[in-house]
Amino acid sequence: MTAATAFGVHSEVGVLRKVMVCAPGLAHTRLTPSNNDSLLFDDVMWVQNAKRDHFDFMSKMRDRGVEVLEMHNLLAETVAIPEARAWILDRKVTVTNVGIGLVDETRAYLESLDPRRLAEVLIGGVSVMDLPDEFSSCGYLDLVRESHGVTEYLLPPLPNTLYTRDTTCWIYGGVTLNPLYWPARKEETLLTTAIYKFHPTFTSAQFEYWFGDPDTNFGGATIEGGDVMPIGNGVVLIGMSERTSRQGISLLANNLFKKGAAERVIIAAMPSKRTAMHLDTIFTFADRDVVTLSPEFMSQVHAISLRPSDKPSGIEATIEKKSFIDVVAESLNFKKLRVVETAGNHYASERQQWDSGNNLVAVAPGVVFAYDRNTETNTQLRKEGVEVITIVGAELGRGRGGGHCMTCPIVRDPVDF
Amino acid sequence: MTAATAFGVHSEVGVLRKVMVCAPGLAHTRLTPSNNDSLLFDDVMWVQNAKRDHFDFMSKMRDRGVEVLEMHNLLAETVAIPEARAWILDRKVTVTNVGIGLVDETRAYLESLDPRRLAEVLIGGVSVMDLPDEFSSCGYLDLVRESHGVTEYLLPPLPNTLYTRDTTCWIYGGVTLNPLYWPARKEETLLTTAIYKFHPTFTSAQFEYWFGDPDTNFGGATIEGGDVMPIGNGVVLIGMSERTSRQGISLLANNLFKKGAAERVIIAAMPSKRTAMHLDTIFTFADRDVVTLSPEFMSQVHAISLRPSDKPSGIEATIEKKSFIDVVAESLNFKKLRVVETAGNHYASERQQWDSGNNLVAVAPGVVFAYDRNTETNTQLRKEGVEVITIVGAELGRGRGGGHCMTCPIVRDPVDF
Amino acid sequence: MTAATAFGVHSEVGVLRKVMVCAPGLAHTRLTPSNNDSLLFDDVMWVQNAKRDHFDFMSKMRDRGVEVLEMHNLLAETVAIPEARAWILDRKVTVTNVGIGLVDETRAYLESLDPRRLAEVLIGGVSVMDLPDEFSSCGYLDLVRESHGVTEYLLPPLPNTLYTRDTTCWIYGGVTLNPLYWPARKEETLLTTAIYKFHPTFTSAQFEYWFGDPDTNFGGATIEGGDVMPIGNGVVLIGMSERTSRQGISLLANNLFKKGAAERVIIAAMPSKRTAMHLDTIFTFADRDVVTLSPEFMSQVHAISLRPSDKPSGIEATIEKKSFIDVVAESLNFKKLRVVETAGNHYASERQQWDSGNNLVAVAPGVVFAYDRNTETNTQLRKEGVEVITIVGAELGRGRGGGHCMTCPIVRDPVDF
Amino acid sequence: MTAATAFGVHSEVGVLRKVMVCAPGLAHTRLTPSNNDSLLFDDVMWVQNAKRDHFDFMSKMRDRGVEVLEMHNLLAETVAIPEARAWILDRKVTVTNVGIGLVDETRAYLESLDPRRLAEVLIGGVSVMDLPDEFSSCGYLDLVRESHGVTEYLLPPLPNTLYTRDTTCWIYGGVTLNPLYWPARKEETLLTTAIYKFHPTFTSAQFEYWFGDPDTNFGGATIEGGDVMPIGNGVVLIGMSERTSRQGISLLANNLFKKGAAERVIIAAMPSKRTAMHLDTIFTFADRDVVTLSPEFMSQVHAISLRPSDKPSGIEATIEKKSFIDVVAESLNFKKLRVVETAGNHYASERQQWDSGNNLVAVAPGVVFAYDRNTETNTQLRKEGVEVITIVGAELGRGRGGGHCMTCPIVRDPVDF
Repeated sequence: MTAATAFGVHSEVGVLRKVMVCAPGLAHTRLTPSNNDSLLFDDVMWVQNAKRDHFDFMSKMRDRGVEVLEMHNLLAETVAIPEARAWILDRKVTVTNVGIGLVDETRAYLESLDPRRLAEVLIGGVSVMDLPDEFSSCGYLDLVRESHGVTEYLLPPLPNTLYTRDTTCWIYGGVTLNPLYWPARKEETLLTTAIYKFHPTFTSAQFEYWFGDPDTNFGGATIEGGDVMPIGNGVVLIGMSERTSRQGISLLANNLFKKGAAERVIIAAMPSKRTAMHLDTIFTFADRDVVTLSPEFMSQVHAISLRPSDKPSGIEATIEKKSFIDVVAESLNFKKLRVVETAGNHYASERQQWDSGNNLVAVAPGVVFAYDRNTETNTQLRKEGVEVITIVGAELGRGRGGGHCMTCPIVRDPVDF
Repeated sequence: MTAATAFGVHSEVGVLRKVMVCAPGLAHTRLTPSNNDSLLFDDVMWVQNAKRDHFDFMSKMRDRGVEVLEMHNLLAETVAIPEARAWILDRKVTVTNVGIGLVDETRAYLESLDPRRLAEVLIGGVSVMDLPDEFSSCGYLDLVRESHGVTEYLLPPLPNTLYTRDTTCWIYGGVTLNPLYWPARKEETLLTTAIYKFHPTFTSAQFEYWFGDPDTNFGGATIEGGDVMPIGNGVVLIGMSERTSRQGISLLANNLFKKGAAERVIIAAMPSKRTAMHLDTIFTFADRDVVTLSPEFMSQVHAISLRPSDKPSGIEATIEKKSFIDVVAESLNFKKLRVVETAGNHYASERQQWDSGNNLVAVAPGVVFAYDRNTETNTQLRKEGVEVITIVGAELGRGRGGGHCMTCPIVRDPVDF
Repeated sequence: MTAATAFGVHSEVGVLRKVMVCAPGLAHTRLTPSNNDSLLFDDVMWVQNAKRDHFDFMSKMRDRGVEVLEMHNLLAETVAIPEARAWILDRKVTVTNVGIGLVDETRAYLESLDPRRLAEVLIGGVSVMDLPDEFSSCGYLDLVRESHGVTEYLLPPLPNTLYTRDTTCWIYGGVTLNPLYWPARKEETLLTTAIYKFHPTFTSAQFEYWFGDPDTNFGGATIEGGDVMPIGNGVVLIGMSERTSRQGISLLANNLFKKGAAERVIIAAMPSKRTAMHLDTIFTFADRDVVTLSPEFMSQVHAISLRPSDKPSGIEATIEKKSFIDVVAESLNFKKLRVVETAGNHYASERQQWDSGNNLVAVAPGVVFAYDRNTETNTQLRKEGVEVITIVGAELGRGRGGGHCMTCPIVRDPVDF
Repeated sequence: MTAATAFGVHSEVGVLRKVMVCAPGLAHTRLTPSNNDSLLFDDVMWVQNAKRDHFDFMSKMRDRGVEVLEMHNLLAETVAIPEARAWILDRKVTVTNVGIGLVDETRAYLESLDPRRLAEVLIGGVSVMDLPDEFSSCGYLDLVRESHGVTEYLLPPLPNTLYTRDTTCWIYGGVTLNPLYWPARKEETLLTTAIYKFHPTFTSAQFEYWFGDPDTNFGGATIEGGDVMPIGNGVVLIGMSERTSRQGISLLANNLFKKGAAERVIIAAMPSKRTAMHLDTIFTFADRDVVTLSPEFMSQVHAISLRPSDKPSGIEATIEKKSFIDVVAESLNFKKLRVVETAGNHYASERQQWDSGNNLVAVAPGVVFAYDRNTETNTQLRKEGVEVITIVGAELGRGRGGGHCMTCPIVRDPVDF
């Protein structure tokens, strides 16, 4: 490729060439029993072991030939570029974010950091206690410290960056910059956007932007990547839920259709539950024609197809009569998909869905990563011929995300159907 | 000891001779994200690994010379005795527990099991689906199955038996049979009581009963063992909280005083929080004069002393002016206790208290078991000369209990003060 | 079963009902870099973790419905029977074993122990330093202590009891009491024999003895269980190697034929190497028609069939022209066996054979236990439809034995061919 | 830093600022039971887990503020510099190394690789099978392949790079480039030398070279870094053994004295044993005045002091009458060193020395890294007030090296004595 490399994700199970992940770190050491709910984590994690297990995940993907980009590294290289640093700090260090009287001090402190450390605190957060005294000329800081204590942040910790899947979605030859649903996660998209805009890996590559822009307020039009799957054959699956709204989906679909990037969006209309927060928490692909899913939740999902139309909206919606799985099968020219349900008895099945048993990420057709603890589901997958490489989920799983959530594929081959 | 062996616990840190624990098992495989709250667990656990880690705990205690009795084993040996089996089943299989029309079937099924399996289901529960069809002559069972499904229990699972500390407390030369606070745990005391009443290990031993009786309704007078510490010198510490009530404490104190078993009860009046549910979740002993505690919670505790009196109530209460720690120190003739706080910065300290960092169990003065993940607190303990033996907490810790909660000392030596 | 239960092993992969294992313990704490070679171990192990991993192995077999008998427990119950204790001690505590002048003292010491502790030292050994001074009236002990130090044993440690496979082999309806090859292991058979002769589990069962007797000197006629596989259809595979001699095989075959217990013995004539010490280190069954093997070693094996004959020897031997695998296939009425070779490149294959990658034990057709570290071979097995349950091999594997070596099946169902 | 940063190691326990390590990788996947002895490993390791455990080690050092340089990364950055690549390849790809007729092909192949991959194969080796066919125009390669197979190397694997301690030693303000004893390790020094000569981290720093040069044949004058300890106060300890020769020591001492870098070398004259191959396998510092050692081996060590002299040799040697430990104590102005012996009974002590129980690396006074398995020695260290951070040794330890062996400190502060 003499000119720019073409980035893009053309399937859910084709050979994975390049992926972005984000290691656990400073942000996770901020999780406590009193704040983890508001930071969307179910429990605190042992960060040292989480780091170790995440490294093992990266290392095993590398052993399979995947180029693994780690977000702290990308961000450090990004903020080393002055205009990139300015672009981020202009947006992060504002009166509305850090409060009156602290903008200059915070900015000065952040500008004083080397790129590695700056990347770390952009992801890990800066509490009012972290700001060194020499950056606190006026008395505002003391005031804030006294009244709020250690848990008042100038920059919030962003522990959900661990789930690189959500902030941006690579769909065929382009990417979205997602407006996320939860306030606690909105700032994540800003960082990923800066990487795409400024880091040489991306500026030298060729791809399009389908949707989103951190400088624009999208109101109720939210999208989260865990709901989006470009499965090939011009089809995109999108889970519709609390986090990914009807408005977001139709805006995205419209753009994809206008640019000829996709021919059909199949919406999975989902129940609203913590345990089924994204489509990929209850349904993922393991091979060209093999999916794993939670029968309990998927039985509540129905399918709606969106296709390009001449109507003013540019979209035509059809409520499907068949089950979601059958609609998906048909769209890929399969008579049937082979389905591996979260396995075991009633209890085991519910436990394994909860422990991300359905949240697989493939590195090639029929080769997936899964948490070790879901032994029964992993066994059933193997019985379908899928190679299951295990990673330790004791700590990483506490934010309710598995291999699919923790990976943002950037280059993935198509597969034939 | 020609006659009966004398059982009893004469300190918190003296040499531990005999202890009762309960391995994870069937009951924990019943935990799911939808029922774990009502079963008082914060998360589901990987039962296979929890079993392995609990075995490692038992094995390391045995390596230190402790005789470790496992509750499934004790209960299996107990129900092998016909009158013991009848005593338990008469109380468990009643119309109010299993429902009209199912008493005979359930009883017949349980009577058909061999002792090992019966012990397993007494702890692990029997759902309406577990009852084999041959025990369901009438149609009631089908009715219940249809209307409630798998999660309707004939015998409830008792996952909190993992915390053998709570149901009974050995205090000097005797034991209590505690009326527990939460309905989900009330039946646990019945099983432990049966073991003490019928198992030869206990029938051949010599000890007294201080309080409690599963056949009697104690109303609001509840006691949980995690709140009770016979620290030596005639003193007993008791945490007063939601779970261990003022009424329970005064009944117990009165009995101890009447029988000359203790001279003073020091009440730790505690805040009501999930993270501080028992005194031992925020405060335990590590050596004769070393304690570990959560400064955040212990700063909210105040001390009340109960002593024998000629008043009709038999008790005299004094509200202490000194801090709880100083009162405890004095009661053991120390000028001061050496205090190891949950260590690290604000976040780390809160995280480690949550992860049972203060919940130590000693097997000898200055030799304690602790979870591996609380590295900073463990380091501080070691700096005070305490030998800290670590056990894996990734799974076992998910019910919010550590080594102290998981052990019911039965024979422990006094220490000199 | 009104009369005695029939014990016996009728295949390599049929449902496993009852198995004997032996947990790591005292004997393994005696292993050091200077003695491990003579005790046939390649390295010292971390005994605490080995115990934990072995417990996990037992626990996972129990979860699959196997009744697991642990040898320390069996032996403790055996030596609690006075005549059994005498039978063992008469044979162990002799002048030739413990030396002149120490027989009475050693016997007195051993007689003083409770059954649990006696079982522990019978397996774990008694060094001259372990004998308490009160059992050393005469001066001989001091003499021995001074001249030899801690490593002179009155009873030798028997760390290879971990591999319960070897000392006795259950072949269809009976068992052998093997004369082992290495002096370091000869005493193991004595202990297993005592269990079979005296423990109620065995005295109440029905089975025959095919060969062997610890009271008889069999000279060069040695057999080790790792070489023996009753694969069904009246066939027994026996590896012929340094450890299992031609003489041993023919004596055993002759007896099996005479009693009508088998119709054919297929000898695998093997190269003599540490890495291929038993047939089961290079070849085991994973399913009715699936075997795993080391291609490097198996290519050096040739097959010899023994069948009953009218000759004076009672045996007719045929040197087979086909490969060993084809001969085995044919004997089970298969056209071909599906073969899973130790997987990966040249290095990986050699490494995995060394790490017991071919040493599987089945608990049912197509359900096997294997070490976790042999990931590539395990993947290939799974691709053949075999369910592979993993156990941690980091410590247990240091004696060069896997699941097959560590199990002595006692009751196993036949399979149809 | 206007001028060059000064690199140097001024003690064994001062604050560690910068360290070089080398992660397990390709070279270790080449280890097999048939070649591990010649590659100086006692056993094969599970490379994936070894990588994970080594990452954990690096990550925990980083958490303590140490800048950790990983050798694959350094080497990749080095070979990206054309003259550095040429410098290495000119020396590695010679007729004597790769054989007649293969020099050009091998060179062409290596030149074709990107820097990351080139670094990987320089450490991991290139077998004749690894060379792609397009680099094999002539027939020599086929010949070699046929006659030798996969295990014939064009570049040998260098698994001992894991032990970065040995190839170079930073002693106060300079470094040595060690001629190593074993042929299997000689090429390691070449790679480290290239890093020091060409990598910007080092070319921009200020330090001296004391001894060694990979282009010169030093005959019997060998030095290995595991024997060398710049303990402060102008003193250097050097173990004299099979690997570090009298000739090497005197050449090094002479140079240090001439340049005023040291005032005294204390030689530890050691027995020649696999288990005591370097001084740091039997003796390391844990705190300013705390050492851990193997009593068995250290009792065989005697001390010889070298000091500058006017003699032609430039050195004066004194055979010390006191024990080595007392000589060391005195040289640091201590009355006595506090000594932690490898702990436990006879067996445990020998086992723990073998498992690198004495091989600690400090990151600050009284803060050391140690393997988890040596629980008894770690406990004794903690009782002396040392903070022991544990790392998993199950795989990493199989080459007989611990934290001290696996680290090459580059910048370390002095401590006061």
